Amino acid sequence: MHEADFTLSAGPTLASSRVQQALGQPITFDYDPAFLAHFKATERLAAELFRTDKDVVLMQGEAVLGLEATARAVVRPGMRCLNLVSGVYAAWFGDWLRSYGAEVTELKVPYDEALEPAAVRAEIERMDAVDLVALVHSETPSGIENPLAEIAPIAKEAGALVYADVVSALGGTAVEIDDWGVDIAVAGCQKCLGGPPGVSLCVVGEDAWAAIDANPSAPRGTFVSLLDWRETWLASNGAKFPYTPSVSDVNGVHAAIAECLDHGLDEVIERHASAARACRAGVEAMGLELWPRSHDYAANCVTAIRCPEEVGVVETLAHIRDRYGVMLSGGYGELAEKVFRIGHMGSGSRSLYPLVSVSALARGLADLGVVVDVGAAAEATLESLSASGTVVTA
Amino acid sequence: MHEADFTLSAGPTLASSRVQQALGQPITFDYDPAFLAHFKATERLAAELFRTDKDVVLMQGEAVLGLEATARAVVRPGMRCLNLVSGVYAAWFGDWLRSYGAEVTELKVPYDEALEPAAVRAEIERMDAVDLVALVHSETPSGIENPLAEIAPIAKEAGALVYADVVSALGGTAVEIDDWGVDIAVAGCQKCLGGPPGVSLCVVGEDAWAAIDANPSAPRGTFVSLLDWRETWLASNGAKFPYTPSVSDVNGVHAAIAECLDHGLDEVIERHASAARACRAGVEAMGLELWPRSHDYAANCVTAIRCPEEVGVVETLAHIRDRYGVMLSGGYGELAEKVFRIGHMGSGSRSLYPLVSVSALARGLADLGVVVDVGAAAEATLESLSASGTVVTA
Amino acid sequence: MHEADFTLSAGPTLASSRVQQALGQPITFDYDPAFLAHFKATERLAAELFRTDKDVVLMQGEAVLGLEATARAVVRPGMRCLNLVSGVYAAWFGDWLRSYGAEVTELKVPYDEALEPAAVRAEIERMDAVDLVALVHSETPSGIENPLAEIAPIAKEAGALVYADVVSALGGTAVEIDDWGVDIAVAGCQKCLGGPPGVSLCVVGEDAWAAIDANPSAPRGTFVSLLDWRETWLASNGAKFPYTPSVSDVNGVHAAIAECLDHGLDEVIERHASAARACRAGVEAMGLELWPRSHDYAANCVTAIRCPEEVGVVETLAHIRDRYGVMLSGGYGELAEKVFRIGHMGSGSRSLYPLVSVSALARGLADLGVVVDVGAAAEATLESLSASGTVVTA
Amino acid sequence: MHEADFTLSAGPTLASSRVQQALGQPITFDYDPAFLAHFKATERLAAELFRTDKDVVLMQGEAVLGLEATARAVVRPGMRCLNLVSGVYAAWFGDWLRSYGAEVTELKVPYDEALEPAAVRAEIERMDAVDLVALVHSETPSGIENPLAEIAPIAKEAGALVYADVVSALGGTAVEIDDWGVDIAVAGCQKCLGGPPGVSLCVVGEDAWAAIDANPSAPRGTFVSLLDWRETWLASNGAKFPYTPSVSDVNGVHAAIAECLDHGLDEVIERHASAARACRAGVEAMGLELWPRSHDYAANCVTAIRCPEEVGVVETLAHIRDRYGVMLSGGYGELAEKVFRIGHMGSGSRSLYPLVSVSALARGLADLGVVVDVGAAAEATLESLSASGTVVTA
Repeated sequence: MHEADFTLSAGPTLASSRVQQALGQPITFDYDPAFLAHFKATERLAAELFRTDKDVVLMQGEAVLGLEATARAVVRPGMRCLNLVSGVYAAWFGDWLRSYGAEVTELKVPYDEALEPAAVRAEIERMDAVDLVALVHSETPSGIENPLAEIAPIAKEAGALVYADVVSALGGTAVEIDDWGVDIAVAGCQKCLGGPPGVSLCVVGEDAWAAIDANPSAPRGTFVSLLDWRETWLASNGAKFPYTPSVSDVNGVHAAIAECLDHGLDEVIERHASAARACRAGVEAMGLELWPRSHDYAANCVTAIRCPEEVGVVETLAHIRDRYGVMLSGGYGELAEKVFRIGHMGSGSRSLYPLVSVSALARGLADLGVVVDVGAAAEATLESLSASGTVVTA
Repeated sequence: MHEADFTLSAGPTLASSRVQQALGQPITFDYDPAFLAHFKATERLAAELFRTDKDVVLMQGEAVLGLEATARAVVRPGMRCLNLVSGVYAAWFGDWLRSYGAEVTELKVPYDEALEPAAVRAEIERMDAVDLVALVHSETPSGIENPLAEIAPIAKEAGALVYADVVSALGGTAVEIDDWGVDIAVAGCQKCLGGPPGVSLCVVGEDAWAAIDANPSAPRGTFVSLLDWRETWLASNGAKFPYTPSVSDVNGVHAAIAECLDHGLDEVIERHASAARACRAGVEAMGLELWPRSHDYAANCVTAIRCPEEVGVVETLAHIRDRYGVMLSGGYGELAEKVFRIGHMGSGSRSLYPLVSVSALARGLADLGVVVDVGAAAEATLESLSASGTVVTA
Repeated sequence: MHEADFTLSAGPTLASSRVQQALGQPITFDYDPAFLAHFKATERLAAELFRTDKDVVLMQGEAVLGLEATARAVVRPGMRCLNLVSGVYAAWFGDWLRSYGAEVTELKVPYDEALEPAAVRAEIERMDAVDLVALVHSETPSGIENPLAEIAPIAKEAGALVYADVVSALGGTAVEIDDWGVDIAVAGCQKCLGGPPGVSLCVVGEDAWAAIDANPSAPRGTFVSLLDWRETWLASNGAKFPYTPSVSDVNGVHAAIAECLDHGLDEVIERHASAARACRAGVEAMGLELWPRSHDYAANCVTAIRCPEEVGVVETLAHIRDRYGVMLSGGYGELAEKVFRIGHMGSGSRSLYPLVSVSALARGLADLGVVVDVGAAAEATLESLSASGTVVTA
Repeated sequence: MHEADFTLSAGPTLASSRVQQALGQPITFDYDPAFLAHFKATERLAAELFRTDKDVVLMQGEAVLGLEATARAVVRPGMRCLNLVSGVYAAWFGDWLRSYGAEVTELKVPYDEALEPAAVRAEIERMDAVDLVALVHSETPSGIENPLAEIAPIAKEAGALVYADVVSALGGTAVEIDDWGVDIAVAGCQKCLGGPPGVSLCVVGEDAWAAIDANPSAPRGTFVSLLDWRETWLASNGAKFPYTPSVSDVNGVHAAIAECLDHGLDEVIERHASAARACRAGVEAMGLELWPRSHDYAANCVTAIRCPEEVGVVETLAHIRDRYGVMLSGGYGELAEKVFRIGHMGSGSRSLYPLVSVSALARGLADLGVVVDVGAAAEATLESLSASGTVVTA
């Protein structure tokens, strides 16, 4: 089977030539002084991306590892947690919180809506006390972006630790860790950074470290231990790893972040916003319905689209992959059979990639007998890109 | 300046990941036994592509070197040559023939038309005798394909050597050297093969070698000498090069040809035809005029389009490159200011690449104030691709 | 700082061009049908390398993840475990066993000796009953190889599960999972396979799965869960991952294993043995002392050498890296300050790499004032390689 | 057949990872604005390497093309040329000069000696008048370096154009075009730069252009035309190529030169000198005889060694390649059966590569029954490298 010509999925997604070449560099010994320096440089670049002075820890596994490691480290039995749920990943996070012994309160909205700051404030006020507020900034499964900028300060003000899953947000939308008062954040590299999946970027601030110190159940001596990284890597000032890092993936992550910063983070974010707008314009012009109830909180990383009744998600995607060489994504978890997802992340947010994904979906559905306006979809996508001005400089 | 996101030019053009990786392999000594074997294997693969048992010589420079080297070798002063001219390259070839001392008769058609076999036959009959008939199979500057399959036998039958420039034909349309009786043919690698430009693939048959032997002015001891390759490389049975070959480019060419053969040459040709049809459908739906007067002889490699009066070729292409990251081509030689050219060659003939190029042109022109139907262009391109059936398997 | 010219460390180590290129391939969506097929093909290749029909699970993190995941899955509180200790890693494994609640008996030998099958048999007979026998096949920190071929059947016969850490053994010495009756084995890719570190290759046999099923504490819903892989990936017949796999690393691992199998596993093992012999010959000729008490159990992957008293390990290695561009390893854990380690794994076991490492060590020590015979070291290394016959065919 | 583990030949030779990656970049359209800028940047970097303000032209073929193109351009019939011959390439150049109609005087020394400035001065004085003095700076076939620094001013002072073949000199020894008054120089990329072979770097100064303008036989309209590059590329200020350049090779050349300049040209030259010294020390310690009669003029790029009578060059090299995976070179032209050549160029002049080549030769000869001191060879090579101080910083 031929490789996909276009990988415009919900991640891992299209990597740039620069990232690919970094991944293909000679493998080095992890204690080679050049690699040690490179690893530290990667942490610093990541901190720049997070706009933070807090510690950045590169956990050596895809984002789910960083999420688990940070959550296990900070969540102690009996901790009063407010879990804000607007999607599949937040719901799963709640399961984790409970399994670690937390007392979990949940504020839920339907999965096609975003959280509202006022509701969060009200919920916090309703609670006796809250130790930690957790939320997903950008819900990849449903293409919904929550207003972390507004919610984080509310939570912080209430004395809670702020835990943000920014897996598919970083690099695609504003993430201002220090300005907003986020204590713990975890990002992935295979989303808006267009890097390889095997590394989690974790931010841990002083308040978070204090909570971790106070948590007797924070794991040590395991692959999911954040403390192992603190007590070996950070404590040795970058001289000793708790275990062997993924050398090639770290090289790829370094290149992905450096590329983003070279283009200018603000420009890259605007590019993601522009691609997302174009994609939504195309989808609506085609006659389909977006999953998010409002454009206001549709995410920059991924556009989720309701699958028409006449077809199934899986068969449609398979047809598009077979016939047109374009790899899109279906839904995930509870939304598996309900939505298509188009990724416009990293290099996939550049140039005419949104046209490729929208048109592949439109033409693929038409092939399967769904009435969609293929020409209007392409026209609207292109018009939106044109209106956004120069979309490829950054 | 950021690299182009899409290189859909008239060549060099988009290379596949496999070709890129071959180019990036370790550089080896040219007399390394592994490289000697690899070089010979590349010749054999090329012969398979040409469908010939004749000698294949890999000249170490872009196709213009192979054209010059073979022409200089075979054309002796006073040779009676019929040069068939339907485009810029054929006209240039006539200049070469004359400069080498040949007596040149030319049969010309307007550059937006193809040669007609009957006219060729008539012209040959009009001539006293003809030693060599030269033609360009696929005129890249104008996107016109000449019926080599019909003309070659006519020329051969008349006792002439058949010299075919198949630079942009090989891999994109049928080229049957032995069946059609072609004596000398030269192909490029940066066109339908999607390889690097630095190697010419030259076919030389027995009749051609005989003519070369009879040519006192056939060059020796120069970079443009075909005889040097015969008298060192071929004579030593692949043990000695006349000069150092371009190791990396040879690796890239090997990969490009192998990829084509792995997909199946017939399937790859059909894919090029399908991409060209889709591109023409899109261009006409947008409201522009193709350069070729008829679809019947529009080439599989490149689609040439008349530039509307309201804009200039250069400014339009610059706008499309700047704004959308898509690199298309303008005209060449006399057609420089008259046509746009879209390449659909190699990997660029796969998947939705024709949509990208057509849409970039349409939207770019619209941005500059030209009235074109952007949506109809995209719709027609996609409809044509859909009608062609599975376009990416090969 | 310039990258090392030669990475001849204890791993990660020198990767071949083929592996590097696989790592640099385009990143694909993990649910792309081509990647799903590729992932399954990688499992099958790994099974071939392990010479097993048992399940192979590719855990997405370096070998320590696979060790932890398999150990946590199988070890239930109260399980009677015999831990065979001849080195640092086995000692650490004992700590894990105890922390998971096992009743651990340990049979220890000094770290410069190997385990003896008869002693293992005697120890098993001394124990009332034994549920699991664990050992490290090849102790990377000390370059000692234990006779797994003889110990595994003894343990199996006694009704115990056999748990083998073959991290640095696979690809460098015989590992016959099915013939020897090993139930659980974990290999790394950055050792004798010359691949990237980020994937663990885990073998799990039916008896092991039965024990896991019977273990109420076998983890689920965590990055270190083996059961998650069984209940999603294996249960779905390769249609669903428990979390996003490390796409690039999987590509690299596929290439590394395929390269080994293309050369022929037996030939590759013999090549590792030959490189190790040459390295030991060179070290002894230089006047240094090997760490292993006997050549009989010196490992094929790494040669450990006692550091002379006049110098420190760290300063010597830094000097060699700075002055000669060669990256060797020091000791690990308790042996950190005591030994140098030379890796001769993967591509580093080919050609004259053993000469490079031995000579760099010799000349580096001489620079620092240690009396070593530099010429004799090189001569003996080369003589051994010469005597081994053709050392690069495989 | 497995690729060579070590390519330490007389060129093409070992390329760095950076060069390989540049070669593997996406192929771009040659008229892409990014490529046009890149091409011009490559010219400027090359000028920096030549230490010249004169024009630099990148001919698109290996160095022999640049030599032919510049010689054909400048040499008019009847031109009085003094050809200085100390090796195979200079002798060939004389054949070219004669074939272009020049009146050629030759000053010859045996091929194992270098030219002497005083003899050159005397020869010039003996001649009535001299229009052009030609010499090879570094004779790759025999590893002899001529004192261009002293000869060029003598020739320039006499009113002659100075034509220098610096193919294997540039990057490995001092080449000061402007300071020394060289008018035309041609360098290769596959020698001391460690780049791909397919591009010639040509320097052409004002006096040379004037001579070319005065030469009615300077070629136009051919692949070997230097004037075509002046009248299209230079005249258009870098907007138009005479034919399609070798995109990938240009990328590789850019990287190779940039790498050299990043390390510092003087440091890189010192590194080549150090590697050559070490190699000669090893060869003499082994008991073999160097081809050059004196170390004073032994080249930095390649060490030529007299083949002992007991063996043949070809069989010895084949044995070394088969058994040890090391690719060295034999002689060339008249020296084919007489010498071995070891390349220590580009990355191959770093680290312990001289040890690898010297030891492979020593051990290979020993295998074939020649009495050589393998240990002394290695020891002397390493001692020399050690004495040179830090050999890998640059």
